[in-house]
Amino acid sequence: MRSSIATVCLSGTLAEKLRAAADAGFDGVEIFEQDLIVSPHSPEQIRERAAELGLTLDLFQPFRDLLSVEEDIFRDNLRRLESKFQLMQRLGMDQILVCSNVATATVDDDEVRVDQLRRAGELAARYGCFISYEALAWGKYVNTYQHAYDLVVKADHPNVGTCLDSFHILSRGDDPSGIADMDPDKIFFLQLADAPTMEMGILPWSRHHRVFPGEGDFDLKNFMEQVAKSGYNGPVSLEIFNDEFREAEVGRTAIDGLRSLIWLADKTATRVPDSPLELPKLADAQSPRGFDFVELRTGRLGEVTKALHQLGFRLGGYHQSKPDFQAWVQGDVRIIVEDEGSTGGATELTGLGVIVDDATAAAERATALKATPVPRMTGEDEEDLHPVFTPDGSELYFCGPGQTGRGSTWIPEFGFEPDETSSSETSDVLINSVHHIALAQPRHMAAETRLFYSSVLGLEPAVPEFIPSPAGLVHKQAIEGENVCITVSAAPEGSEQGGFFAEHYPEHIAFGSDDVFAVAQRAVRRGLKMLPIPENYYDDLAARFGLEPGFITKIKALNICYDRSSNGEYLHFYTAPLGNTFFEVAEVRGDYRGFGWADEPIRLAAQYRALRDDVRGIPR
Amino acid sequence: MRSSIATVCLSGTLAEKLRAAADAGFDGVEIFEQDLIVSPHSPEQIRERAAELGLTLDLFQPFRDLLSVEEDIFRDNLRRLESKFQLMQRLGMDQILVCSNVATATVDDDEVRVDQLRRAGELAARYGCFISYEALAWGKYVNTYQHAYDLVVKADHPNVGTCLDSFHILSRGDDPSGIADMDPDKIFFLQLADAPTMEMGILPWSRHHRVFPGEGDFDLKNFMEQVAKSGYNGPVSLEIFNDEFREAEVGRTAIDGLRSLIWLADKTATRVPDSPLELPKLADAQSPRGFDFVELRTGRLGEVTKALHQLGFRLGGYHQSKPDFQAWVQGDVRIIVEDEGSTGGATELTGLGVIVDDATAAAERATALKATPVPRMTGEDEEDLHPVFTPDGSELYFCGPGQTGRGSTWIPEFGFEPDETSSSETSDVLINSVHHIALAQPRHMAAETRLFYSSVLGLEPAVPEFIPSPAGLVHKQAIEGENVCITVSAAPEGSEQGGFFAEHYPEHIAFGSDDVFAVAQRAVRRGLKMLPIPENYYDDLAARFGLEPGFITKIKALNICYDRSSNGEYLHFYTAPLGNTFFEVAEVRGDYRGFGWADEPIRLAAQYRALRDDVRGIPR
Repeated sequence: MRSSIATVCLSGTLAEKLRAAADAGFDGVEIFEQDLIVSPHSPEQIRERAAELGLTLDLFQPFRDLLSVEEDIFRDNLRRLESKFQLMQRLGMDQILVCSNVATATVDDDEVRVDQLRRAGELAARYGCFISYEALAWGKYVNTYQHAYDLVVKADHPNVGTCLDSFHILSRGDDPSGIADMDPDKIFFLQLADAPTMEMGILPWSRHHRVFPGEGDFDLKNFMEQVAKSGYNGPVSLEIFNDEFREAEVGRTAIDGLRSLIWLADKTATRVPDSPLELPKLADAQSPRGFDFVELRTGRLGEVTKALHQLGFRLGGYHQSKPDFQAWVQGDVRIIVEDEGSTGGATELTGLGVIVDDATAAAERATALKATPVPRMTGEDEEDLHPVFTPDGSELYFCGPGQTGRGSTWIPEFGFEPDETSSSETSDVLINSVHHIALAQPRHMAAETRLFYSSVLGLEPAVPEFIPSPAGLVHKQAIEGENVCITVSAAPEGSEQGGFFAEHYPEHIAFGSDDVFAVAQRAVRRGLKMLPIPENYYDDLAARFGLEPGFITKIKALNICYDRSSNGEYLHFYTAPLGNTFFEVAEVRGDYRGFGWADEPIRLAAQYRALRDDVRGIPR
Repeated sequence: MRSSIATVCLSGTLAEKLRAAADAGFDGVEIFEQDLIVSPHSPEQIRERAAELGLTLDLFQPFRDLLSVEEDIFRDNLRRLESKFQLMQRLGMDQILVCSNVATATVDDDEVRVDQLRRAGELAARYGCFISYEALAWGKYVNTYQHAYDLVVKADHPNVGTCLDSFHILSRGDDPSGIADMDPDKIFFLQLADAPTMEMGILPWSRHHRVFPGEGDFDLKNFMEQVAKSGYNGPVSLEIFNDEFREAEVGRTAIDGLRSLIWLADKTATRVPDSPLELPKLADAQSPRGFDFVELRTGRLGEVTKALHQLGFRLGGYHQSKPDFQAWVQGDVRIIVEDEGSTGGATELTGLGVIVDDATAAAERATALKATPVPRMTGEDEEDLHPVFTPDGSELYFCGPGQTGRGSTWIPEFGFEPDETSSSETSDVLINSVHHIALAQPRHMAAETRLFYSSVLGLEPAVPEFIPSPAGLVHKQAIEGENVCITVSAAPEGSEQGGFFAEHYPEHIAFGSDDVFAVAQRAVRRGLKMLPIPENYYDDLAARFGLEPGFITKIKALNICYDRSSNGEYLHFYTAPLGNTFFEVAEVRGDYRGFGWADEPIRLAAQYRALRDDVRGIPR
């Protein structure tokens, strides 16, 4: 598969875009004309630079409003087109994207279009160039891929083919299965884009909200399968118009993009094994058996270990060669705490270990998906957990099931035996799972983070929600496997109120328990500082669900929050913030599937107040 | 007019919202229930606090999904409703918003709805409460204001009325003229919101993109006129769901909101003079005769005055009592430069003077629209130009026409005579107007800035555009009067690439000339550093417009950019950046109406490069 990316996907200057595409590992780029026009570098310099970087220049785009016009306008269009062929010769490239007419079309006649397309092809041939004709979803007369293809077939010129763009096809709800039957010699180019489902006109949706494959809601696997079946063997290219990508760090966006293509190709390769596209096949995604451990780094060790003790964790031991690391355990839940010294630095979630059947293969898949391996720091006789960096620089570890089937093969390095503390028969083990890990990212990194974990770990995205907070709306989305679940919060940004959570939005670990009351009572007895829940919440809860006063009194006394679905209940409490993290303990009753997000506004407001004086003259 | 604002419009905690609403000058607030639920303050404390702040609590909202349900569900709904009446009693408030059913409606029968509404009214009466029934635009069975009103009339209960919400009515394209004929005793509440035209489903449009009146595209003047004609005399309240407001500084948002209400009331008062609403009437907006002067502050005086000299300005003189201020003039264009000492601080646009017929009345209008007067610092015998602060802290001055009719009555304070330098017959006066002032704001302040200038100066918004830049899309919109024009750029934000223009997006002055070539040639002779325009731009320009090679050579030699519309042409050049500002010189030919925004991507890319090393290994 030859991978490509349109320069319009990336921020910065054309020079910066080329560098980022090459650094990420793309084979080529599409030159978005505007990027060239604003560049101080000549076409010859761009050509030379691309060659230096090992990038092919795959497509020059877009050329607008060529066909469906009166003859005099068409002749002027040919003059414009010829000047672009001359420019393309200077760039050393030969393919141009011509999209269906939006602005100037007045002649709705396929015969005229076919004639004009053929004449454009003749002009292209004189320059050794090729025209890739695409139906825009909002083209005035031509707006379906089938129509564009029919025109190309009728034009019957070797320098004229069609360009398929997943957005223009899937945004209209068109069925892409007709692609499989196309003549591959007439498909000149393939552009891929995903998009979230939005109630929005197609044009603004396309111009502002496209995302990389796997970050939206289109069925791109099926789309790609149709393309592969056709026998197409050209570049597989990303063309994303996205307001956030335009403001993001270009190097990270490029890596995110290539990851999305590799992920999609892998998904498709399993279904079209003998495609001429030679889609790369990765090691199989292994949905984790569970979380093996979570790692925290803290400059306030006492605060963290006290909270862990209050929640019922026991200190297992210290790592024998890295004594700054200590393991805290309760049943099969393990927390590694890294003591960075009494710096006062905030406590942060720095690593996540998952249990998979084949750790080496899982790590190989991750690196094939553009994750950077963490340089090995383990001793010769220590377990290699194959850590890789996640997009925000935290670490993801892969642990085999070991002899117990429960992972944690590294426990002896901490100087204790797995069963010393992990027996679930121990009477004081009240927390027995990690219900979910709640990650947080600035808004522009959330989609990338979700795609990273879902592609590497084979998880699937759930339905997103918006949660109001005192500093702005928070977009939340879970990505789920059979045994593990990660939620990703996209925190507000900006220089004003939103900046508050941009800096302070905490990540957290939600523990699972069969008896949240027992955990809470023990924790309170041991002096745990819980996140205080307002009385008003309980008043509303009683009214909302018609709950018994006695039950309300009981949960209120322990700052326990409550949510209910048609299938079950979710009872949970939060600890007070510990730097940039905190803990939640949740008891799921029945078949409740969520994460207590109905209570998120309460939590966010309480954390906001905990971190900021809000009283301003009101008592309490 | 009693002004009110829903707490959901504002960021922060409920305590912070109340404080901001009171500080801005609102008479009351709507309590958005979620804000109360997450608050640690009891209803009694909120009641007390509002009283201390002089705020009435006008509406408790929302109560969802009451009507159109089976009897057993309705009874449970009444139980929920009763608990809210009890809560409202603790808050000391008596009106609740009930919106039409979206989620649980199963019974599409007006008789059932009328019966249920009446029974809810009876329950309300027992608590001395009132139900304000509103049709949501996406209500399952009830979604027009007329339908909601009909149900209220049929329910015929003194404790049941309707709530009118401009968004729910105008977003559907419904004609609001039926409001004028309504019984004012049956209209219990009025909520106002504006919104920009967007191709989007009504629900997400409503939840994320409402704006204050005057910041969107709805015809709220007509809407308000219908309400005033009905005889309604209750609160006029803002209910805005806006993602950016939720992240903005709460105090500024509140002032912006009250300004929007005052602006709208003023617009309406002229058309419904004897309305019982007693809409406040301000001093008439005076569309300025022209810009009187522009003020810059600089820590790099030499750089600025050199550029002014190169553009043909002459030093008029120094202010006699404030010698840090110097006046530079060319024809009727006057630039005041404030020397802040050789601090190296960036040059910034700090003030704008406009010529109006009655400066005192114009300043009165500004302060009535919540502009803060700048404390008077002028001497006894000096002109008072009535400066007020704009939302970003720069200053706006009002100057009368004076004896010349051309303003600048303050010139003698700088020790020269108006005609000494301002005669347009002077041969070297090549710049003869300020074509427009280009302001820039972070994205979340742009709408507020546009409303400030348009309400204070009586300008009208033009059609906005998005301009691509290497650091993100820039939203631009002009606000125009007959003789003056201001453009407002909403610059990208964020912590990554977008942050670049968040910090460095410059404001500028665009001068008008009848001969941009003569200005450019003189400037180049005097050594002006222009913003370099790439060759690629000229290659594209030639292809795009079919321009003569000779003409291209001529404009390329002077870094002049070119735009054309069906009616005319725009020739212009930009100076190199001077800190956070720069100058543009433009020649308009024919009836060209724009601002050369087709060339903005070129300018932004060039400025980006000028401020940031982009070369990375490519020569030049």
